[in-house]
Amino acid sequence: MVEELLRFEQRLLERNELLAEQLRRSFREAGVLTVNLMSSPGAGKTTLLEVTLASLAAVPAAVVVGDLATENDAQRLRPHARWVRQVTTGTVCHLEAAMVAAALEGKELRELQYLFIENVGNLVCPASFDLGEEARVVLFAVTEGEDKPEKYPPIVHRADLVLLTKSDLIPYLSFDLERFRTSVQRVNPQVPCLTLSARTGEGIEAWVAWLRARRAMLVGEVPEY
Amino acid sequence: MVEELLRFEQRLLERNELLAEQLRRSFREAGVLTVNLMSSPGAGKTTLLEVTLASLAAVPAAVVVGDLATENDAQRLRPHARWVRQVTTGTVCHLEAAMVAAALEGKELRELQYLFIENVGNLVCPASFDLGEEARVVLFAVTEGEDKPEKYPPIVHRADLVLLTKSDLIPYLSFDLERFRTSVQRVNPQVPCLTLSARTGEGIEAWVAWLRARRAMLVGEVPEY
Repeated sequence: MVEELLRFEQRLLERNELLAEQLRRSFREAGVLTVNLMSSPGAGKTTLLEVTLASLAAVPAAVVVGDLATENDAQRLRPHARWVRQVTTGTVCHLEAAMVAAALEGKELRELQYLFIENVGNLVCPASFDLGEEARVVLFAVTEGEDKPEKYPPIVHRADLVLLTKSDLIPYLSFDLERFRTSVQRVNPQVPCLTLSARTGEGIEAWVAWLRARRAMLVGEVPEY
Repeated sequence: MVEELLRFEQRLLERNELLAEQLRRSFREAGVLTVNLMSSPGAGKTTLLEVTLASLAAVPAAVVVGDLATENDAQRLRPHARWVRQVTTGTVCHLEAAMVAAALEGKELRELQYLFIENVGNLVCPASFDLGEEARVVLFAVTEGEDKPEKYPPIVHRADLVLLTKSDLIPYLSFDLERFRTSVQRVNPQVPCLTLSARTGEGIEAWVAWLRARRAMLVGEVPEY
């Protein structure tokens, strides 16, 4: 019975991959850099997006945000984005490509330069579901401790960027930055890692520069940095 | 296809419930209070267990701890417990009754008074899997923000106790305790809520008293408080 379930899940994942590839083609054709933000609950995805959208200022950006319940995050983000769509998943622990496709209905991608997908707060399930994104970004908060990358390897293994958030709290914790970096590198030696604080602004410039460079690559411009 | 998958999952869940009921009977017969600790990654389950086991002192207690990867948590807990078994789940986002049953093989339950099950760090999936526990305890760290109970309702809905951890960090955050309590009550008006800090010791006495009272009820003694 377990084997049969695994085969079903495999087929669901394959169907997701197909749809994700279609989405990726549409994003690329429209010149939209799509970023999938993943982290445990409360690591600071929404706060980072507020600051990021403010930094991008006049650049047109939109957000699809996933949660089991509530419209809280969409309400927080609406003042800063071209548009925001909240997906409520009920009991589902991740977003899937079909949910993103449904959230995009009636929207003109060519009007955007950036699309941020804020995944359900979860360091396990979102790792398995391609959403057609160009870049997978994983956030860890300093308050979660240094060993989380090694404890949740699949999501780090497939990440394009790791963000260490809430750095302003380091003085009040026994957090060892080198131990964290080592934990990331053991799982994914190539992935770059930025330390930032949405509250003090530390690292935000470097993060926004990374986004701009990724979009420049996507649309065939020379990256700015 | 999705309907077929759901039927399979339903059958898996039913099989889990059956095994969980068997486990619950064994725990009760042996007079062991079994507690399922659930939270997002880094909310402080392992640190709380270190402090709890130290407070229980000579009282015999054991731990089953689940993680995708690493033996880190088992290593941290071993000095404090009668025994500790680490379950590594690979890519599975929760513990199941069968994993707990396997971890108990060769162990004599009658030697214990408490069994703590530290679930995989995840606020979604563990909610669906009964492990035969007597009490379901959900931890939220103050660093995660006040709205998490409402954003992850299923796990709060079935909780017997909510612990708000890392209270020592409140002075460095804009955390509103009343908003958090309201968020818990909207999902589960009955569930008690304790605020604690493993670092300063705040609330630990009340938490250990709660454990002792629950065990006294289980073995038919008059609770101490």
